[in-house]
Amino acid sequence: MGADHARIIASQIPGAKLQIVCDADAKRAAAVAAETDAKPKSDNPLDVIADPSIDAILIASPDATHGELTLAAIASGKPVLCEKPLAPTSAECLKVIDAEVRRGRRLVQVGFMRRFDPSYADMKLVLKKGTIGRALMFHCFHRNVSAPPWFTSQMAITNSAPHEFDIARFVLDTDYKSISVFQPKFVDSAKPGAPVMMVVETVQGQLVNIEINNNAAYGYDVRGELVGEKGSVSLRSPVHSETSVNLMSGLSYPEDWRPRFAEAYRLQNQAWIKSIETGVPAGASAWDGHAATLVAEAGVASLQRGTTVAVDLKAKPSLY
Amino acid sequence: MGADHARIIASQIPGAKLQIVCDADAKRAAAVAAETDAKPKSDNPLDVIADPSIDAILIASPDATHGELTLAAIASGKPVLCEKPLAPTSAECLKVIDAEVRRGRRLVQVGFMRRFDPSYADMKLVLKKGTIGRALMFHCFHRNVSAPPWFTSQMAITNSAPHEFDIARFVLDTDYKSISVFQPKFVDSAKPGAPVMMVVETVQGQLVNIEINNNAAYGYDVRGELVGEKGSVSLRSPVHSETSVNLMSGLSYPEDWRPRFAEAYRLQNQAWIKSIETGVPAGASAWDGHAATLVAEAGVASLQRGTTVAVDLKAKPSLY
Amino acid sequence: MGADHARIIASQIPGAKLQIVCDADAKRAAAVAAETDAKPKSDNPLDVIADPSIDAILIASPDATHGELTLAAIASGKPVLCEKPLAPTSAECLKVIDAEVRRGRRLVQVGFMRRFDPSYADMKLVLKKGTIGRALMFHCFHRNVSAPPWFTSQMAITNSAPHEFDIARFVLDTDYKSISVFQPKFVDSAKPGAPVMMVVETVQGQLVNIEINNNAAYGYDVRGELVGEKGSVSLRSPVHSETSVNLMSGLSYPEDWRPRFAEAYRLQNQAWIKSIETGVPAGASAWDGHAATLVAEAGVASLQRGTTVAVDLKAKPSLY
Amino acid sequence: MGADHARIIASQIPGAKLQIVCDADAKRAAAVAAETDAKPKSDNPLDVIADPSIDAILIASPDATHGELTLAAIASGKPVLCEKPLAPTSAECLKVIDAEVRRGRRLVQVGFMRRFDPSYADMKLVLKKGTIGRALMFHCFHRNVSAPPWFTSQMAITNSAPHEFDIARFVLDTDYKSISVFQPKFVDSAKPGAPVMMVVETVQGQLVNIEINNNAAYGYDVRGELVGEKGSVSLRSPVHSETSVNLMSGLSYPEDWRPRFAEAYRLQNQAWIKSIETGVPAGASAWDGHAATLVAEAGVASLQRGTTVAVDLKAKPSLY
Repeated sequence: MGADHARIIASQIPGAKLQIVCDADAKRAAAVAAETDAKPKSDNPLDVIADPSIDAILIASPDATHGELTLAAIASGKPVLCEKPLAPTSAECLKVIDAEVRRGRRLVQVGFMRRFDPSYADMKLVLKKGTIGRALMFHCFHRNVSAPPWFTSQMAITNSAPHEFDIARFVLDTDYKSISVFQPKFVDSAKPGAPVMMVVETVQGQLVNIEINNNAAYGYDVRGELVGEKGSVSLRSPVHSETSVNLMSGLSYPEDWRPRFAEAYRLQNQAWIKSIETGVPAGASAWDGHAATLVAEAGVASLQRGTTVAVDLKAKPSLY
Repeated sequence: MGADHARIIASQIPGAKLQIVCDADAKRAAAVAAETDAKPKSDNPLDVIADPSIDAILIASPDATHGELTLAAIASGKPVLCEKPLAPTSAECLKVIDAEVRRGRRLVQVGFMRRFDPSYADMKLVLKKGTIGRALMFHCFHRNVSAPPWFTSQMAITNSAPHEFDIARFVLDTDYKSISVFQPKFVDSAKPGAPVMMVVETVQGQLVNIEINNNAAYGYDVRGELVGEKGSVSLRSPVHSETSVNLMSGLSYPEDWRPRFAEAYRLQNQAWIKSIETGVPAGASAWDGHAATLVAEAGVASLQRGTTVAVDLKAKPSLY
Repeated sequence: MGADHARIIASQIPGAKLQIVCDADAKRAAAVAAETDAKPKSDNPLDVIADPSIDAILIASPDATHGELTLAAIASGKPVLCEKPLAPTSAECLKVIDAEVRRGRRLVQVGFMRRFDPSYADMKLVLKKGTIGRALMFHCFHRNVSAPPWFTSQMAITNSAPHEFDIARFVLDTDYKSISVFQPKFVDSAKPGAPVMMVVETVQGQLVNIEINNNAAYGYDVRGELVGEKGSVSLRSPVHSETSVNLMSGLSYPEDWRPRFAEAYRLQNQAWIKSIETGVPAGASAWDGHAATLVAEAGVASLQRGTTVAVDLKAKPSLY
Repeated sequence: MGADHARIIASQIPGAKLQIVCDADAKRAAAVAAETDAKPKSDNPLDVIADPSIDAILIASPDATHGELTLAAIASGKPVLCEKPLAPTSAECLKVIDAEVRRGRRLVQVGFMRRFDPSYADMKLVLKKGTIGRALMFHCFHRNVSAPPWFTSQMAITNSAPHEFDIARFVLDTDYKSISVFQPKFVDSAKPGAPVMMVVETVQGQLVNIEINNNAAYGYDVRGELVGEKGSVSLRSPVHSETSVNLMSGLSYPEDWRPRFAEAYRLQNQAWIKSIETGVPAGASAWDGHAATLVAEAGVASLQRGTTVAVDLKAKPSLY
């Protein structure tokens, strides 16, 4: 995703100049830097963050490093767009929040790009306009072609589901109260990436029902339907043509998330650059990143215990 | 189609008893009769028509025999459902009309089953309710998987297009004024069943634009869109499920017209049986059969001459 | 539904003669009988069941009477098509089963008409052919325009959900192990027919996730998606046209279940009449009726207790 | 459209700096310039074109001025993106072509933005890959909500249809041989913007069938289906959500072309800026602009004469 972000910043966003591409893998850093007209760097990323000639930081490094690098960006007073998760644990997320609160200014945007996706934007607008009445249930489906061998069901909750947790929380403009995780215990449920089905209750009593299915095989497919008192609104994926051959009329699925969310990434990064210019924060905050990680932790507990688990979100600092 | 009609009458229509299955092929007559609990017959069909124990006649014989058999049914005063065409030439159609007019009573229904198809019924209703305003254009697409080797472009006009000619005339409740036939002159346009594109003008000045494509390869597919002053209404084919596999979400096409128009045939034959009971005619009349054949003849002339050809429909007898 | 069944039998199913229409409301009995060319009757239905001139019984009376009337039909050795539920409690269902087992012959068909719906038939076929691999999850959505004032959330489970319980059990060819019921506790969840969301686990470990939403407002809408290891298959409702007006392209929803399941009812009743002729049972058995009632009872317990409740299905008698 | 182009260049395309916004209306020039951080100018546009501090020119002025301004840009040796049409007459288009040929270098890109639309790109790719075999027919539908009072049927051919003429020529990679124009002669065909239906034959004998309907009322809607020997491919418009309310499931239409082709404009302008950097021309050339104007002229003649009219395209200069 780092290379994608570099390309987006370099070729699709006016007002920004990609200066340094930093990657532990020197070869990859060089390749991406060459393609994007930037300088490559493969050692200490903290030097880049501290570099006074750099105005802002985009973090797309391994998840475990997100917290530390974001803290460094805050320490140097620079705006930072951090890929999700903000940090792998809610405790570490809180450290970032504490640092940002102490700094007294919002610097962190978390890469929940779906908030910029035209489909979810439509959905949120339809809800806001009252077209479907007040929201009652949100059905979410997240499907990948296949999970890597090391992917576990727990990771379905901690790595894939946060996108769903955040976008449902954003669309519904609410917080979560509890989560119940189910799992099809099929003959092969031992295989990597076995799906999970979650029922998450909001503090207002709405239900967010989420399927995470990382071995869906048939394609990358994110679906969502928001059910209100007077109607429902569903996402529609960007598919540009329909082909009729061999006794079938078909719409294609992408193999991964890139084509599905290309526009969301472009708009997110454009909004981030603009937020740097204007000083008005955009997108998901560190607090939002914390909220997503917190419900994921409760989800893991629910999967392990086989019961509903409460989500214990503390009071939101006034900065957010 | 004869065997299908026998099955429909025997198994889906209450109030009727299939008595005799008559087919020149004795083996086929026997097989269909056995399946439908009727008596087989393979020689003179005129005997069946004259048989006083038979109340009504359904004709699904080769096209060239339709006129003669229908005339025999009229002569014996029996209701008859004749598969389209009523007769291969408009002149022969007029003979049937003359006979029916002399008899002074409508006995003939022509098998334009699309008039009973729920999609076209919806379309006609939407037009009648004024939802889309007055009709301006009707786009029709008729596609078969493949044409038999002996099928010519002329036959596309005389054998396939009459269904379109009739249903557009029925939905629009009008008659035709002229027809212009075009043909893609592609490298293989010499191959059997090369498509034709027709622009037919109604007496009210509306345009009916028809593609007949008997080698469409991808499936049996009938589409239609009626464009009015305020909106448009399109047909939607009966497809009962959608399957997502191999990076595609697909809807299936049938291999031939049977699944597409199964309900239309059932409703048509039910309406025919009911019309025999009530004496109130249903469906397309002999006059409608004539009208479809007449515009097809003008279409053949247009294809041959490369110009627009007028459709010369005489005054409608008061019987219709 | 009784009047609908009378009309279907009288006008769409060959091989049967509707003889008596029995309804406690004498006026309604007379009206439906007149329309369907049958005799009206408004007192004791047990007399009709015992009448030796009657070959078979179709029960569409109030739910509470189903068990008693079905037992009477079994006692008189007559085939019976009983609208769902077979009986309001699993205990009473077991009495019917006991009676049928003692009689030693299957006489009871339960009116789970969805088993004959072309969409579910497609879905079951796709699963059987292996197109989507083995089934993992089945998402079911049942939505009505509005619930009557006396409708409770408990009734969503006992009256609406049985259709879902049965069809998922039928498509998956399995039985249920446990059920967890959730409910959006929204500001108005006290209003009649508040929705429920259920996660039902099969004995094979698959998940059947069911939304019952009887105040969906926007239309009658039944959706279903079966997710397998290699793909997914979704139901597609019968909609025959698409209209574009006022900046919208729209497909219509029916106001109730009749148009959605018209074909299923016709095919169900046709199969029932045929099963009487052939002696080979069709459709859902008394045992299937019992299974649906049993999981509904567990669902009510889950709603009340707020926990997962086991479904305790006994061994299936060899008759089924 | 000029203001839109200014916004796109200023906010979505890296590598370019919008310097001057020139509009005869000083107020509008000032407003757009303020919004896009450029300088306003309302008098002689030829000064802007001649200004040595300006690298490239984007022309979105009234149609009648396109030719003159483009010639000025060529004269000053500057790359120019000219909104369609290149010029109102094919004769004037040829003057631009002559000037560019004399200059010996391609400087002109014509704003046929559909060439950059993802839907048409998909269609062209599907054709190129051989998925649908060789192309036989291309059905095109162009619908606007309403035409201005001064809009004539002739303008439907000269102003709206060129987009269709160009994109079909581009997708099919061919030229046109003849055109036949029909018109629904409805009761109100005298009203402004009465629709036209055109059958255009390519030099390879394919048929391009085009409906131009500028008073379609229901929405802005561009449809297209390319029919090949083995299948067909259709455009799918960008619609991001589907809403179910009031017994309808609906997809929205935009009120004008902007939302439909927003991505095409962005990609077109991005490609133009990149072509300036690289010197490799992108998009439609002056020759393409001429070809579209030429077939439109033949179309007007066909409408007036009521016959098929040949399209007389001269030999293409080697520059193109």
